[in-house]
Amino acid sequence: MPYFDAASAAPLHPVARQALLAALDEGWADPARLHREGRRARLLLDAAREAAAETVGCRPDELVFTPSGTHAVHSGVSGALAGRRRVGDRLVVSAVEHSSVLHAGEAHAAAGGTVTEVPVGRTGAVDPETFAAELRGPDGGAGAGAAGSGVALACLQSANHEVGTEQPVAEVAEACRAAGVPLLVDAAQSLGWGPVPGGWSLLAASAHKWGGPAGVGFLAVRKGVRFAPQGPSDERESGRAPGFENLPAVVAAAASLRAVRAEAAAEGARLRALVDRIRARVPELVPDVEVVGDPVRRLPHLVTFSCLYVDGETLLSELDREGFSVSSGSSCTSSTLTPSHVLRAMGVLSEGNVRVSLPAGTTEADVDRFLAVLPGVVSGVRDRLGTGAPVPDGGEDLVVDALGKRCPLPVIELAKVIGTVRVGGTVTVLADDEAARLDIPAWCEMRAQEYVGATPSPRGGHAYVVRRLS
Amino acid sequence: MPYFDAASAAPLHPVARQALLAALDEGWADPARLHREGRRARLLLDAAREAAAETVGCRPDELVFTPSGTHAVHSGVSGALAGRRRVGDRLVVSAVEHSSVLHAGEAHAAAGGTVTEVPVGRTGAVDPETFAAELRGPDGGAGAGAAGSGVALACLQSANHEVGTEQPVAEVAEACRAAGVPLLVDAAQSLGWGPVPGGWSLLAASAHKWGGPAGVGFLAVRKGVRFAPQGPSDERESGRAPGFENLPAVVAAAASLRAVRAEAAAEGARLRALVDRIRARVPELVPDVEVVGDPVRRLPHLVTFSCLYVDGETLLSELDREGFSVSSGSSCTSSTLTPSHVLRAMGVLSEGNVRVSLPAGTTEADVDRFLAVLPGVVSGVRDRLGTGAPVPDGGEDLVVDALGKRCPLPVIELAKVIGTVRVGGTVTVLADDEAARLDIPAWCEMRAQEYVGATPSPRGGHAYVVRRLS
Repeated sequence: MPYFDAASAAPLHPVARQALLAALDEGWADPARLHREGRRARLLLDAAREAAAETVGCRPDELVFTPSGTHAVHSGVSGALAGRRRVGDRLVVSAVEHSSVLHAGEAHAAAGGTVTEVPVGRTGAVDPETFAAELRGPDGGAGAGAAGSGVALACLQSANHEVGTEQPVAEVAEACRAAGVPLLVDAAQSLGWGPVPGGWSLLAASAHKWGGPAGVGFLAVRKGVRFAPQGPSDERESGRAPGFENLPAVVAAAASLRAVRAEAAAEGARLRALVDRIRARVPELVPDVEVVGDPVRRLPHLVTFSCLYVDGETLLSELDREGFSVSSGSSCTSSTLTPSHVLRAMGVLSEGNVRVSLPAGTTEADVDRFLAVLPGVVSGVRDRLGTGAPVPDGGEDLVVDALGKRCPLPVIELAKVIGTVRVGGTVTVLADDEAARLDIPAWCEMRAQEYVGATPSPRGGHAYVVRRLS
Repeated sequence: MPYFDAASAAPLHPVARQALLAALDEGWADPARLHREGRRARLLLDAAREAAAETVGCRPDELVFTPSGTHAVHSGVSGALAGRRRVGDRLVVSAVEHSSVLHAGEAHAAAGGTVTEVPVGRTGAVDPETFAAELRGPDGGAGAGAAGSGVALACLQSANHEVGTEQPVAEVAEACRAAGVPLLVDAAQSLGWGPVPGGWSLLAASAHKWGGPAGVGFLAVRKGVRFAPQGPSDERESGRAPGFENLPAVVAAAASLRAVRAEAAAEGARLRALVDRIRARVPELVPDVEVVGDPVRRLPHLVTFSCLYVDGETLLSELDREGFSVSSGSSCTSSTLTPSHVLRAMGVLSEGNVRVSLPAGTTEADVDRFLAVLPGVVSGVRDRLGTGAPVPDGGEDLVVDALGKRCPLPVIELAKVIGTVRVGGTVTVLADDEAARLDIPAWCEMRAQEYVGATPSPRGGHAYVVRRLS
């Protein structure tokens, strides 16, 4: 049963399991105690820190273990912002960061700070020059020198968790260095594949993303970075991560990262070829599909595409029925009413969105079976939603009332009637589903029709105007 | 090799180990996902929550899993304080709470709030009436009704982690109810032995204290308690504990708590008898010992005593050499320069302090061997510190300069010379070790000499005056 959702959580690596079992026996005691059991636990903790720091590329005393990647990000952002309070209160982040970074930014804004989101292009990557301009501040930094911009911290992920696009970390790190701003890199998705290029000031990661156990994050803070841990603290983990150390899991996290790294080059190349196959074949096999994310500068194991006229939750559950576990950034899932902020920031289609992230060991046969099953699943969903029968030609401009209808229905209604107006005529879609704002322009681009624009509709939602070009 | 430090961390219970192994295979995926693996993880998480809530005595939707007991306390305190911000900013805690509660209080005070510590008696328990008076506020609550006291939250541990004394939780809970103040009970030390008496509003606990794995705490918040989680959050654990759930450990925590509870009555009675034996025998076997904590209203497995003229760190390492792993609240350990805040609040001797906390399964033979070894270890340490040879009788009042000498040396110097002054004469000890403030009065009480008082010494530290009575 192929599991294609490694970017959410990878199955436990055998080395993680072995190390965890050994450490359950040897490392359950309190490493702060002086007795035999405590000293044994301390040795394990120190060794895990050495190993983790070496793999991350920092000194052991720069790295602490946190209860999760989310905790590492939250602590890293709040500690770095507080440490540079005197410089200013601006936090600069890319618009496609993981929710943990955005949530830390929301908390900062709620406390009176300023958060600036750097936009991304259609592949999901930030432009280093745009990022650098935000670091210099609104006046280009001319007013009061580099510090005059008031930027306390910048955050950039190493690679995007939803579309796999690698960010230009080295270039942005260089811009941060020039501006005197520390850079926090969220390396959650990439650390198993290799070290983050140098130049970062803080780094956060999460063990269950590389096949380590749940319950362990890494937070590295370079010597010299001003850092003031927030909230109640204690003497553990240099005062940066309170609470009893999750030692067996920490040992397993460090050991498995080392093991995963040893296999990364070969396994990465193998999965990259499988993902290239998916990227090439899906648009051939399934009509009206947009494959998103950078085709080259990307994580080896992850690919995302969106299918017109399909509802994401139904697509997921149909694929699940066929034995494939994937993820979706569509708004049409039970847990959310808005499309993924990543797809929105990229300006790409969100409906029928599928993220495929291959765990290590995925076989060619698994991928072939997925490619064999996908077209039938998509067309099945489309048939049920009734996309097949366009209304006969009318000629006049049309207004389609899709108010109260959830995605992908507004786009389906649009597609049904576009052929009925004359070339040069318009279809106006009234819709109040958030996804329409993204998906109607995306549909126009995919179908080579003109997206004229949207205006607020008197009855709620927006009126989206589309001109028929062909 | 007997391990007598269960109150720091208990060895992993066999049921915890089994459950953890099973959940590593079944519960590594993201319980927020809709696919098969995600749904399986969600089922495990829900079942663990049901089991944990039943054992705690609350509804499943009142309980969240946190990364540690410390996190549960920190989140519980900050969330409850923020939820009742409009009522006031006063936090009332016992003076002998775990450091996690006191650290949360320090953070509250640093943010401008007020923290009141309720004193304890010589056994370590708070007096419910004294606690109730603090809830009513300085003017007895007469000014503006119950809310006029401005108390947002009260905290009381179920039992003390250093001396084992049970607190009068039911009585204090009743006083809190009468005052309209929520009560947070830190049940870390007692939850494995039984449920906390009703009447609490919030409850925190830590799995590795009962033989569960590291990395799991419980935070229960009763429906109706105003609660506003602080810091960046996410959608996991009802927004009260951000970060990917540590699912295998959560499953193991819930399963092991249930297992430990099933054995609690029988194992508790057995360990209680062993501890009674230690409480009775140690003062018979070792001269100049004070056994502290309530002899009856106490945890079954924990006993603490202090030995005059002994330095805690040396005692610990000698016992470790003999194969016994114990803990100490003395100041004479490498990690701290002040005696435990618990012993200080109780006003009992801190030097040569030893906490014995028996894990489940400790045998009578283990305890007998400890009792056989202890006297020789203590007298060995005393011999090396030269407590054996009192100075010949002089008769005049004396001043002993122990400035710069670490505990237990000031008390040793005092004991050496007390016999040399006439009955009715005084010895003045100049000392700047923090522990002297506690240990010189405690020595006087144990040796039936009069402690006259202390005044600041012109050369730093204090001058402690002791009158020879016999």
